[in-house]
Amino acid sequence: MQNPSAILLVIGNEVLSAKVADENGPFLARRLHALGIRLLSIHTIPDDVEEIVAHLDRVRARCSWVFTTGGVGPTHDDVTIEAVSRSLGRPLARSPRLEEVFRAMHRRHHAGEEIPVAALRMADVPSGTRLEGDPDYPTLVVENVVMLPGVPEFCRFQFERFATALAASPFKLACVYVRLGEGPIAPLLDRVVADHPTVEIGSYPRFDGADHRVKLTVESKDEARVIAARDALVAALPPGAVVRVEGP
Amino acid sequence: MQNPSAILLVIGNEVLSAKVADENGPFLARRLHALGIRLLSIHTIPDDVEEIVAHLDRVRARCSWVFTTGGVGPTHDDVTIEAVSRSLGRPLARSPRLEEVFRAMHRRHHAGEEIPVAALRMADVPSGTRLEGDPDYPTLVVENVVMLPGVPEFCRFQFERFATALAASPFKLACVYVRLGEGPIAPLLDRVVADHPTVEIGSYPRFDGADHRVKLTVESKDEARVIAARDALVAALPPGAVVRVEGP
Repeated sequence: MQNPSAILLVIGNEVLSAKVADENGPFLARRLHALGIRLLSIHTIPDDVEEIVAHLDRVRARCSWVFTTGGVGPTHDDVTIEAVSRSLGRPLARSPRLEEVFRAMHRRHHAGEEIPVAALRMADVPSGTRLEGDPDYPTLVVENVVMLPGVPEFCRFQFERFATALAASPFKLACVYVRLGEGPIAPLLDRVVADHPTVEIGSYPRFDGADHRVKLTVESKDEARVIAARDALVAALPPGAVVRVEGP
Repeated sequence: MQNPSAILLVIGNEVLSAKVADENGPFLARRLHALGIRLLSIHTIPDDVEEIVAHLDRVRARCSWVFTTGGVGPTHDDVTIEAVSRSLGRPLARSPRLEEVFRAMHRRHHAGEEIPVAALRMADVPSGTRLEGDPDYPTLVVENVVMLPGVPEFCRFQFERFATALAASPFKLACVYVRLGEGPIAPLLDRVVADHPTVEIGSYPRFDGADHRVKLTVESKDEARVIAARDALVAALPPGAVVRVEGP
């Protein structure tokens, strides 16, 4: 896949009610970008089956991969797996291999004690679910939906073991730091944007007394186009306006 | 409004491509919760008019307030105001008062120099837009849509000047810290959840050697119901399982 894309569903009432600051969204945004996978949107939604199903229905066909974080534990507010099952029309079925994974994990962490029967509902997954990545703590993937845990340490582990294999051609970035504010440069920026429709040009003002007032970014997977747009920007800016240029 | 709710649209390619870590989402989640306003979802989406319009169309009727952050500056990637205009069917019109605000702000920050004409497009807002909060740096509100800036310092300022007046009855929270893991307590938790449908009960495991393995939260605007559910939880847990109880 040359231009893979992703949409992220961050699932958890605790993020919306600010009991927990979400770490998984920023982590996945950073890692997906580094892997050359375009993140199209992030939706932070409650532990509500209907809401999760509605989002899955809307986004599944719009991207290469849907990542969900959270809602995969054994308690009443863990409803992500059920929502994926419903959205895909794939009934839940006990995975014997996953059951053995949870049994072994429990024995390891609880001095040989057996896992409670109720907790084994974590091994009920949509039919056709693949166990990818690490065999002892596998990443659950069904069709193009990757169901990651909410605990940040586990989320990172399961993501890394699975997603590194998805790496695509990298994004190339150039930055132009400008002494002027956004107001005076907006018209010339419009022209460069119009002339370079295949690169993504961003304009980020700052107001904190740094050595520049605006950072312009030029990004694309095509390095030649990044360089062309970067050079066009520098040429269009008034003499002396550019503080410095970085990359690619 | 006794039970106000909000949905947040974080608008900006830079967050999705991890060039910037979003501070506005976590800030608004925290402040809205403290003000007794339920945050229903957060959608982080690109600087794309169609995408913003689609989200506005979907969420406007579902909550008391829609907050947007970002996309209100003068450059090509600032398309939030146009999207709000389209979604509400309220054409853009120059606000003379807002034009004067931007002229004065520019003179203040640029040693008396006049604002570039192109930058005055920031004063073109959906017809019917109210300028609320601080007269020198007003918050833009039209119908139930509040358009906040993306620069975190300005976002916080405009939010605080506007939203404090929205404060509703506060949420009441109790926490029960439990020595057992989620597996063994899941069945009893299910029963307490079923018996207390009007409070929100959350279960948050941790795996870092703290003095508890699970933090259970009980939240509602009705303190008596929080206390009843909290006491039911404590009574349902096995003897010795509770490490401590907090609030309300």
